[in-house]
Amino acid sequence: MGLDNIGEFEFIDKIKRGTIYRDSGVLKGIGDDCAVLKPSDGKAILITTDILVEDTHFIRELISPYKLGRKSLAVNISDIAAMGGTPREAVISAAVPKSLSLEYLETLYDGIKSMAQEFDVNIVGGDTSGSPDRLVINVALIGEAAEDEILYRSGARKGDTIFVTGAVGGSAAGLDALKNRRFDEKWQSLIEMHNNPIPHVVAGRLLSGLKLVHSLIDISDGLAADLGHICEESGVGAIIYENAVPVNETALEYIRSFDLNIEMITLFSGEDYVLLGTMPSATTVIAREALKSSGYAFYPIGEIVAGEEVSLKSINGAIRNISQAGFDHFKR
Amino acid sequence: MGLDNIGEFEFIDKIKRGTIYRDSGVLKGIGDDCAVLKPSDGKAILITTDILVEDTHFIRELISPYKLGRKSLAVNISDIAAMGGTPREAVISAAVPKSLSLEYLETLYDGIKSMAQEFDVNIVGGDTSGSPDRLVINVALIGEAAEDEILYRSGARKGDTIFVTGAVGGSAAGLDALKNRRFDEKWQSLIEMHNNPIPHVVAGRLLSGLKLVHSLIDISDGLAADLGHICEESGVGAIIYENAVPVNETALEYIRSFDLNIEMITLFSGEDYVLLGTMPSATTVIAREALKSSGYAFYPIGEIVAGEEVSLKSINGAIRNISQAGFDHFKR
Repeated sequence: MGLDNIGEFEFIDKIKRGTIYRDSGVLKGIGDDCAVLKPSDGKAILITTDILVEDTHFIRELISPYKLGRKSLAVNISDIAAMGGTPREAVISAAVPKSLSLEYLETLYDGIKSMAQEFDVNIVGGDTSGSPDRLVINVALIGEAAEDEILYRSGARKGDTIFVTGAVGGSAAGLDALKNRRFDEKWQSLIEMHNNPIPHVVAGRLLSGLKLVHSLIDISDGLAADLGHICEESGVGAIIYENAVPVNETALEYIRSFDLNIEMITLFSGEDYVLLGTMPSATTVIAREALKSSGYAFYPIGEIVAGEEVSLKSINGAIRNISQAGFDHFKR
Repeated sequence: MGLDNIGEFEFIDKIKRGTIYRDSGVLKGIGDDCAVLKPSDGKAILITTDILVEDTHFIRELISPYKLGRKSLAVNISDIAAMGGTPREAVISAAVPKSLSLEYLETLYDGIKSMAQEFDVNIVGGDTSGSPDRLVINVALIGEAAEDEILYRSGARKGDTIFVTGAVGGSAAGLDALKNRRFDEKWQSLIEMHNNPIPHVVAGRLLSGLKLVHSLIDISDGLAADLGHICEESGVGAIIYENAVPVNETALEYIRSFDLNIEMITLFSGEDYVLLGTMPSATTVIAREALKSSGYAFYPIGEIVAGEEVSLKSINGAIRNISQAGFDHFKR
């Protein structure tokens, strides 16, 4: 069944069902000129937005509509997690080519709703429109946080230990597998990491609640680039210890199987959506225990130093500058 | 100069300048994973979003990048106005084809900023990405309002007078002129109404402050369709008096010159971005005076009745059902 058989307003009625999971704080959801929200007393509001364009951010044949829906919300939830916040309400824009089936679009929204439900996010509005040929999804997400617990990129200090809350490389290896149509069972977990990332919201909340963490970001552009963002905003440099970087086991096997450049996959590719932060060395044990008790890992991977470069210290002791800008949409 | 000469992060640095007009309430603008805002005590938050896709919502050759930028924000500001709210902070996503010049994109953002400045809106974040061929702009806008002053679509009551805050038909006539390449000086004001609409924020604030208005919406889908939204949400019907509908003078001349269907332009086409509302008949004089003192018009155009249809009463007294769904992106 095509979209032209149903029409925009009937479709909006369809997707409206099951968009509010948490009544508190929502005075009006989908169905007026704006959604109306009641913010929690004294909390600051976080806002983030991400656009996903077909053939730039995703290939329609390489991700199911359900997972595309999940991912479009997940990448925004991850931005809230990276501030130590709690995601709250989302508005979703979708520009849809006529060739897309109603079933595809319903499944896409089912995916969005499943991610929303998992992270207690209400979908309160959006915009639905046509598109000449490519599917475009934009999510804007509001979150909240206590003002004194928000973790910015700009707080890193010399001597801080740099840490990540999970292994890296899985998503980039998964993308490589997708691009090369390597769909064997053994690489499915990598493809899943790329197509269905799970944001580290609980880890972010735990870390912000400790009031010990100096800076936090999520790994979307890549470890080197995102650490570069922290360094730039904080006016510091960083050294990553090569042998301390936790690389996803299957990604490592994938890298070896196809003789890929390990640094390209683990340092210079993104979308792992684990958290990357810095905190005083003496306090890392507290963070490790807190995260462990909630099922998250805590890997110290380097230290903040004076300067402005991101450097890599090899196992043999050599140090070299690996500063770079990360994925640049205009340059590639 | 092409975008590939400058890169995404350098571009973000460029557009960052001049995005905060009002420091109060903004703890962090562009440059972290999220923007951080401090809501006004006791106020409710409004949120809306709109996506503009090249060749669906605009033809790049028929609107300057400056006005496209202004309009992309204006249509969102109009949604805040339609709730009686005050626009506050915006996040802007742009997916940009490589072929677009840096100058085009800078001018687009200059347009966005000029609209932001006129309505005291801060631009606090966004997402910039590539796009295979078409330009896509998504704006999400936050506003605020006192909870007891918010004007929903759902409050219309039988006996209410229906009113608009400005003439209709100008934007649709302008779109027709653009499509038919009628660029004569005499139609420029129509083209301007289509390409550079000015949201009725002050009118919306005045109307909400009166606490007399029962329902409010902005005319984006068209007078008949938007009145239909009010009727549907309020469980009422409406009669429009044909001879009371204020039609833009130049639009009228345009319609006559090219023998167009006047109802198609004035009732069934949208994007005028004037406000359409309902209030008790006895109180309309108060609204008229309040709007007049701020340079807005107030035209009573009909009344709310029992039922669920939107009807048109002709000059000869005949009444016919003109209910329709308005512009449907999936059906055309």
